Amino acid sequence: MESMKRPFKGIKKDARGRIGCYKDDWISGLCSGFRILAPTFYIFFASALPVIAFGEQLSRDTDGSLSTVETLASTAICGIIHSVFGGQPLLILGVAEPTVIMYTYLYTFSKGREELGKKLYRAWAGWVCVWTALLLVLIAIFNVATIISKFTRIAGELFGMLIAVLFIQEAIRGVISEFNIPKDENPKLEKHQFQWLYANGLLSVIFSFGVLFTSLKSRRARTWRYGTGWLRGFIADYGVPLMVLLWTALSYAGPREVPSGIPRRVHVPLLWDSESLEHWTVINDMLKVPLTYIFAALIPAVMIAGLYFFDHSVASQMAQQKEFNLKNPSAYHYDVFLLGLMTLICGLLGLPPSNGVLPQSPMHTKSLAVLRRQLIRKKMVKRAKECIGRKASNSEIYGSMQAVFLEMDASSPDVSVHDLEDLKQAVMKDDGGDDTNKFDPEKHIDAYLPVRVNEQRMSNLLQSTLVGASMCALPLIKRIPTSVLWGYFAYMAIDSLPGNQFWERMLLLFVTPGRRYKVLEGFHASFVELVPFKQIAIFTIFQLVYFLICFGVTWIPIAGILFPLPFFILIGIRQRILPKLFDPDHLQELDADEYEEMAGAKPRSLSLREREPPDVGSDGGADDFYDAEILDEMTTNRGELKLRTTSLKEESYMRQEILISFVLKLFSFSKSICVIHAYDGVWYGMLDRSVHRNQDDV
Amino acid sequence: MESMKRPFKGIKKDARGRIGCYKDDWISGLCSGFRILAPTFYIFFASALPVIAFGEQLSRDTDGSLSTVETLASTAICGIIHSVFGGQPLLILGVAEPTVIMYTYLYTFSKGREELGKKLYRAWAGWVCVWTALLLVLIAIFNVATIISKFTRIAGELFGMLIAVLFIQEAIRGVISEFNIPKDENPKLEKHQFQWLYANGLLSVIFSFGVLFTSLKSRRARTWRYGTGWLRGFIADYGVPLMVLLWTALSYAGPREVPSGIPRRVHVPLLWDSESLEHWTVINDMLKVPLTYIFAALIPAVMIAGLYFFDHSVASQMAQQKEFNLKNPSAYHYDVFLLGLMTLICGLLGLPPSNGVLPQSPMHTKSLAVLRRQLIRKKMVKRAKECIGRKASNSEIYGSMQAVFLEMDASSPDVSVHDLEDLKQAVMKDDGGDDTNKFDPEKHIDAYLPVRVNEQRMSNLLQSTLVGASMCALPLIKRIPTSVLWGYFAYMAIDSLPGNQFWERMLLLFVTPGRRYKVLEGFHASFVELVPFKQIAIFTIFQLVYFLICFGVTWIPIAGILFPLPFFILIGIRQRILPKLFDPDHLQELDADEYEEMAGAKPRSLSLREREPPDVGSDGGADDFYDAEILDEMTTNRGELKLRTTSLKEESYMRQEILISFVLKLFSFSKSICVIHAYDGVWYGMLDRSVHRNQDDV
Repeated sequence: MESMKRPFKGIKKDARGRIGCYKDDWISGLCSGFRILAPTFYIFFASALPVIAFGEQLSRDTDGSLSTVETLASTAICGIIHSVFGGQPLLILGVAEPTVIMYTYLYTFSKGREELGKKLYRAWAGWVCVWTALLLVLIAIFNVATIISKFTRIAGELFGMLIAVLFIQEAIRGVISEFNIPKDENPKLEKHQFQWLYANGLLSVIFSFGVLFTSLKSRRARTWRYGTGWLRGFIADYGVPLMVLLWTALSYAGPREVPSGIPRRVHVPLLWDSESLEHWTVINDMLKVPLTYIFAALIPAVMIAGLYFFDHSVASQMAQQKEFNLKNPSAYHYDVFLLGLMTLICGLLGLPPSNGVLPQSPMHTKSLAVLRRQLIRKKMVKRAKECIGRKASNSEIYGSMQAVFLEMDASSPDVSVHDLEDLKQAVMKDDGGDDTNKFDPEKHIDAYLPVRVNEQRMSNLLQSTLVGASMCALPLIKRIPTSVLWGYFAYMAIDSLPGNQFWERMLLLFVTPGRRYKVLEGFHASFVELVPFKQIAIFTIFQLVYFLICFGVTWIPIAGILFPLPFFILIGIRQRILPKLFDPDHLQELDADEYEEMAGAKPRSLSLREREPPDVGSDGGADDFYDAEILDEMTTNRGELKLRTTSLKEESYMRQEILISFVLKLFSFSKSICVIHAYDGVWYGMLDRSVHRNQDDV
Repeated sequence: MESMKRPFKGIKKDARGRIGCYKDDWISGLCSGFRILAPTFYIFFASALPVIAFGEQLSRDTDGSLSTVETLASTAICGIIHSVFGGQPLLILGVAEPTVIMYTYLYTFSKGREELGKKLYRAWAGWVCVWTALLLVLIAIFNVATIISKFTRIAGELFGMLIAVLFIQEAIRGVISEFNIPKDENPKLEKHQFQWLYANGLLSVIFSFGVLFTSLKSRRARTWRYGTGWLRGFIADYGVPLMVLLWTALSYAGPREVPSGIPRRVHVPLLWDSESLEHWTVINDMLKVPLTYIFAALIPAVMIAGLYFFDHSVASQMAQQKEFNLKNPSAYHYDVFLLGLMTLICGLLGLPPSNGVLPQSPMHTKSLAVLRRQLIRKKMVKRAKECIGRKASNSEIYGSMQAVFLEMDASSPDVSVHDLEDLKQAVMKDDGGDDTNKFDPEKHIDAYLPVRVNEQRMSNLLQSTLVGASMCALPLIKRIPTSVLWGYFAYMAIDSLPGNQFWERMLLLFVTPGRRYKVLEGFHASFVELVPFKQIAIFTIFQLVYFLICFGVTWIPIAGILFPLPFFILIGIRQRILPKLFDPDHLQELDADEYEEMAGAKPRSLSLREREPPDVGSDGGADDFYDAEILDEMTTNRGELKLRTTSLKEESYMRQEILISFVLKLFSFSKSICVIHAYDGVWYGMLDRSVHRNQDDV
């Protein structure tokens, strides 16, 4: 590797880049005042809830050696460090599922060895972290981060699917466990008599399904027809924590005769319990670990390092997708370096380390884009109204607004002015004549404002601090029924599927040819149009088989610790073998690496605005929720932007087609017909002749 | 009333009309061979299930005096009589909710009187039936049926809403009852100990919600993207009974330790139990009823007669909507006369009488339309292929097909030929040139075939016989958990709401102005476009208040028996008061009487076919399910056809707009925009200016 030859190059460059805007990161955070609290709380709830769930999972799988206290602590510590020293302050850190799985394997391993046992588990895990840290630092120093582009969609989505399946597995296991007596508990207790076990099980079924359904529904609240924009927005943003709260409250509604302990609730030692305080001694125990095991720790360390490098970088990419028009530079090398240091700290404290998480990171950027839009609009409208007030000419009005815009993102004026073209049009169109062309700041500015993000460190710092603070709220967390968490696991799994092309391609296989036009009516990725169905099918089946292998590995008792291995191997397969099996253009469509795919597909904020007219009349001020809604529909649940180049240049017009049709919800058959005409060749693969008949009739 | 002056006029006319086609009714039934079984079983399940549910409800409310045995018996007897002697053989009869409610009131009344008591309840109810029969016969003789047009949508939908709410109430009551010990049962039993009551309750929650959700999902199966047309069609047609079966099966999956009797199951005396056999003695008991009560029976009789007349006629109308292009004449007067006789018979046998039911009746016609289409197509394609085989000219091909068509519905050739215009076009367009114009019998005939219904008495007779036969299946019915029925009640309620304009208008009130355009993107009734929002709101609130009054009446202990009264009063209000409060055109839109509303809106079968290309390639023969799907989407869950004249003549072009856009699922914003342009005036009421901005941008 060329880049290998010049160590520290990447880190230096990144550091230099960030130092330049470090001061601004804080200032712009402070400037936005209380409004910053909206994204803060939004992300806090979005990241705290899974951390709690993982904590419970971990404490079950490690017989309580690690629990919610540790996961929260790690998330808070790493979050604060990253928000202050991190290269990409939009990135959200947390203890993720892969970490939990890895730590479970480590536990089962060390429990099986009498030299380690349960006692030295955390110490040994500490050594694993030490090695992992070392590897990550080396990766950063030798600029290996550049190979991240080798991790293509196929690997990412396969991994996402694996996590989803593991979540479902966890949910099912959890619900079943509610019907049985928990291990090392006294079976004589009344609550462990059969009829109560049965009742407890039935309750858990009700609660878990209740949480699952209500959460899924509330997440879509923004698209509801009913209720004001504000209400819809609120439910969509905080629906899931609200549902957890609601069902926890309901769990107390049971009749008096039900013995305490039914339904079962989360088991967490409090912060000030002895179990939680042991951690400070972990570093001493580490010296007690036999030398062989210290070196044996290298094997899991390689796996974890690989996972973290991958996860962290992808999450960081997602948070910095081009469509967000971020002004500040990226810092992949430096962030991996910092991740290494944080992993070391967690290891020495006996905590499971944190890394960049999806979908919280892009969610964070999204929420800041909404905030930014509000700020800019506020100023612009004010200035524009002044001008209109003093009967200024259209060009003057526009000039004044452009001035505001430029001073608000000084960094790259050229781009900005270009972005304002649409707005300029709108102002100039105003011939003072009839109402239709009349320029109305309230509406038009809102409509033609390009996407800008409020880049700062404040929201991240605050939310991490909140996570830390929530450790004092453990007495409340203890009140959550475990069954609610099982429902939440199922929710996380199902919620992660839409937008995962692997999943969507699998569904596509079940669509009968006569129905495929329905897929085209909806918003769909470009491959659906550009790759013959047969190719799609073969590719998907290959991926499915590979997935089953990966899933199978997780079931192997000790060797399961190697479960990330298949993913690393997959990169080789993608590089060497797949290109031989598939037409490169098709492969490009089916498995474009994130970067390429995102390139150049800038949302035409004009059309974006059309889809949801800012409705000042009835519920004024609701428009920020509209912004949120648009961004919602622009992104997959994974936080990935849906608008992408179809990577065959001459088709940009088609992208417009798709984009507009998506944005205006004009999922009209006639539209897809135009597309069909454009690609008859490919089309015969996709749709059978009958559709062509329709073209003629349309 | 003019018509009053000439008694028997209506009945005579009806009888004459039906005798003309009586023979055909049987012949065409026999001709269609085994294919007739599809609609038969479809309707059998659709009508048997509610009858069973009502039976359980009745046996709870009358302490077992009447139960599923009686409801099934009544449905079978009346069904068979009607299918043989009825004027409108497409009409499906059954014991409906109003009957159950009425019989409950009768029971609570007679139980309270020592002269009657539980013993003479059925005898007294018999007298009520005698009076009811008398009244119905009088109604028929004096041609009162002509006033049915006075029952407008407002009354019908108010009544529908009341039934829906009573269903929900029944479902909730049912689920709650599962947590308590059933009356007059021994509380000492193990299954009545608290923990088991609790478990039983929780189980019932799971089962009822399970049935509710799965039924609602499966009902929409035809629109699913996945699975073959055949599978989707099957699930959509038989999903609900399948789900009842599924959940009943699941109810046996509980662990061994659960005591028998949990979950609780339907309680029915078997056909050969003494309780079921008492009925033959009811006629003797009737003489024991004191004279005063015999005359008192007149009061409920008036109510029931009114209800039956109303229900029966509306159901009959729904089964004969113009869009079905029925060839045989209607017979409202005669059918009411026959209903009277059937009521008498049921009364003397101590059975709750049956009457025409919704939505089963239109469902029946729909399924027969699908059957007919298959038959015609089969013959035509055959004939056309012969012609093409011997290189016949286009006009010859068309001629041969028209011949087939005419001989298949001889009754009104002129109409038919006209209906075949589209097909003619298709054939003539064939210039033997390129593929696009090439005439293909398989596809084109299918595409341009007008709607015809297979009118006969066989399917109705068979399904009634099956209902009768199912009385021997009571041992199986006893296995259904009661909680499954509660879920089914909730399903019936929720399923009946879409398409009920009263309900849809109430929802409309909760749509914020900025969102109303979303309503227009979907398929919507004409009033949404033609009536200012304020008017809609006032009208709806009036209807809501009136509804609450009606619902309140049902709660009054004895006087509750008068609950149909408000509906009769409403007719007067509609005639006298409402026209003073609302612009007649608007009133016409908001509350058109069924007949007018249906007039003239004939579906363009051409465009109907386009929406779902018959896809011979993949799943051949699936097209009959496509037919079903189209008809499905053409009708509300109540069985009412959605395509209606907007009752302002010059807007027929707009109807086309709506129809086509509906059929092609082109719910495109631009389309509704065209509509907007057409009615700007009204529009300002509906949408705020922001939408107009969009028009310009589109």
